[in-house]
Amino acid sequence: MTTTVGILGGGQLARMLALAGAPLGLRFRVLDQTADACAGQFAPLIVGDYTDRAALETFASQVEVATFDFENVPAESAAWLAERVPVFPNPRALAVAQDRLAEKTLFRELGIPVPAFAPVDTREQLEQAVARIGTPCILKTRRLGYDGKGQFRLRGADDVDAAWAALGAQAPKVGLILEGFVAFERELSVVACRTRDGAFRTWPLTENWHVDGILSASLAPARVDAAQAQTAIAHARSIAEALDYVGVFALEMFSRDGVLLANEMAPRVHNSGHWTIEGSETSQFQNHLRAVLGLPLGDTRMLGHACMLNWIGALPAAGPVLAEAGGHWHDYGKSPREGRKVGHATLRADSAAELADALARVGRALGREAQVAPVVERLRG
Amino acid sequence: MTTTVGILGGGQLARMLALAGAPLGLRFRVLDQTADACAGQFAPLIVGDYTDRAALETFASQVEVATFDFENVPAESAAWLAERVPVFPNPRALAVAQDRLAEKTLFRELGIPVPAFAPVDTREQLEQAVARIGTPCILKTRRLGYDGKGQFRLRGADDVDAAWAALGAQAPKVGLILEGFVAFERELSVVACRTRDGAFRTWPLTENWHVDGILSASLAPARVDAAQAQTAIAHARSIAEALDYVGVFALEMFSRDGVLLANEMAPRVHNSGHWTIEGSETSQFQNHLRAVLGLPLGDTRMLGHACMLNWIGALPAAGPVLAEAGGHWHDYGKSPREGRKVGHATLRADSAAELADALARVGRALGREAQVAPVVERLRG
Ligand SMILES: Nc1ncnc2c1ncn2[C@@H]1O[C@H](COP(=O)(O)OP(=O)(O)OP(=O)(O)O)[C@@H](O)[C@H]1O
Ligand SMILES: Nc1ncnc2c1ncn2[C@@H]1O[C@H](COP(=O)(O)OP(=O)(O)OP(=O)(O)O)[C@@H](O)[C@H]1O
Repeated sequence: MTTTVGILGGGQLARMLALAGAPLGLRFRVLDQTADACAGQFAPLIVGDYTDRAALETFASQVEVATFDFENVPAESAAWLAERVPVFPNPRALAVAQDRLAEKTLFRELGIPVPAFAPVDTREQLEQAVARIGTPCILKTRRLGYDGKGQFRLRGADDVDAAWAALGAQAPKVGLILEGFVAFERELSVVACRTRDGAFRTWPLTENWHVDGILSASLAPARVDAAQAQTAIAHARSIAEALDYVGVFALEMFSRDGVLLANEMAPRVHNSGHWTIEGSETSQFQNHLRAVLGLPLGDTRMLGHACMLNWIGALPAAGPVLAEAGGHWHDYGKSPREGRKVGHATLRADSAAELADALARVGRALGREAQVAPVVERLRG
Repeated sequence: MTTTVGILGGGQLARMLALAGAPLGLRFRVLDQTADACAGQFAPLIVGDYTDRAALETFASQVEVATFDFENVPAESAAWLAERVPVFPNPRALAVAQDRLAEKTLFRELGIPVPAFAPVDTREQLEQAVARIGTPCILKTRRLGYDGKGQFRLRGADDVDAAWAALGAQAPKVGLILEGFVAFERELSVVACRTRDGAFRTWPLTENWHVDGILSASLAPARVDAAQAQTAIAHARSIAEALDYVGVFALEMFSRDGVLLANEMAPRVHNSGHWTIEGSETSQFQNHLRAVLGLPLGDTRMLGHACMLNWIGALPAAGPVLAEAGGHWHDYGKSPREGRKVGHATLRADSAAELADALARVGRALGREAQVAPVVERLRG
């Protein structure tokens, strides 16, 4: 009895899911729009658009259960699929997480603090929202944004013109939302997993650093007090239960003056959880599959301290990372392209001090001092 | 610059090599005699005999470097290949390890204690060897034996007839060797790795239990004193240097009255090193590839204590293993068949006591008390 898992989207997340699922005896089918999707190097690829009924039919006929590498699969496609095979997370959870307005509305309903926000459909609404929320603030597309794309920062009310010029045309298609800019001290995420029968686990809180809207580094465990970690976990649990969520998701939060404000959720395995491959007893990838298949979850405890460094655009030399005792390399098998996530490294160590030293060495050897600096500072501070 | 690694043999070792090599950005090509070789589920498979020149040519034309999942690839094929692409381990090392007489002769030359042995080509030689070595003893094929196949145990000199009847016909083809039977207290292995530039590392010593000649369980670290571990590592190093060995290999030993006797070497990643996937900072699979590619080796230290249980013939239920905090499942994606290695489980724990408890629970839940009993006893003893 071999189970074939279908994954919509064939990027690095699908690739790492397939690698983590192989030991469970699973087979995979990946649907992606491009023939060179990097997951295709380790799992059979079906090439087609996410709205291509013929491709979806082929996919559905070959899999026993389906999940996502890509969260912006059209809701109708997910719903169509869900009528044919079990789909986790369920299409409703996916739909909520696809829409910044829907997710922030849900968070607020659940009593989870969020930055000020307002839907924006017209230029007038934008002006009113800026007046109410104040500046600085950020205009974002409600849907289809990722890696900080589809965002415009307004420093003052004068920027309304520029913001509308940048994103106004997209209002009819994907909707817009204005959010108060949070002068956060830290960005944190909790990567969580829930099973079909409601078992819920989280990995230790992770601190994240973004550069130009793209994740640059993650550190786990985050240096937060136990009460804050408890709060974050409670938020993640209430979201998971409200959505009857099955599988792994990430809740991204801002921490300011000791308060956690929920920014967004990612309804899938998440870049801020990549360190779990080597830094935890069970990785987010394996637990996602266990949840999707109705198997018991693996332990999410950490093995020491871990830092993930993202490689954007092109890979640096692997040597300095491989030369570290706890250095682990992840090349996604993609061709280089500006702004593209092409790989990551995880450094693991038994103590924070050792991790800081290893990071400093790697930063120096690669000429990437700026990337490691905030993490080293946090570890030594 | 993508590197494609060729693997001769497409079983679980090739499969785990491919899974471990993916994060290094590697691609794979696997040559196997059967179209359903389990590595083919995660790497492109070329189907052909190891002596099939056309298949070997296709293979050679698609890879930058080649290595082995299967040690009994004919020496001529390995040599032919080595003229076209770099092959690690080198064909001479492979040839020595393929032949019990050559390897024991080498061990003895290197000053490594071995059980008494003698080559056997004829019935008369068998009689003479039995007279010299004494009983009990074991007649083995020199080549092509695995999992205890091609062996006959002689309890007394009366068994010469039966032994010759069982294996005599094979003498002209694969050669025979008679070995003194070692009433060992323990079976130990050291899994070691050497790079192209001579760097050498070993994982902690592993204790192994065989049932019917097939590995049943492995425990790491083995409970041996530091001096014995040092001796084992020194033996492995001198073998690696003598053969200019590149990659991972295992040296299997018997321990009796505090003396280590070398039994055989496996010129490849080894079943007694499967626990390194979760139990060590770097797995044997990843380090083998690092060595083959000329990359620095990863740290081989352990993370706690680990026990590997082999699943032979058919898989038991996964649930009890997955329910353990440090329980990891490995289904090789093979169909069940008597005597076939179809998967394994690794249990990892921070302390020996926790590992013993986990093993006992798993043994009970699966009705496999006998398989876990010697390991539990060792951990609690
Ligand atoms: N309201 C805000 N206040 C301050 N900074 C913000 C705010 N919203 C976004 N940012 C910054 O921009 C980054 C990316 O924003 P956001 O998470 O909304 O976008 P995204 O495109 O969905 O990103 P990702 O793909 O990383 O999830 C945030 O991690 C944060 O650094
Ligand atoms: N000389 C010996 N004295 C005592 N036991 C032996 C001897 N040789 C082999 N055995 C037992 O049989 C097992 C398998 O033998 P051996 O390693 O020679 O065979 P193999 O077919 O190459 O096995 P594998 O595939 O596991 O390496 C050993 O691990 C040991 O338990």
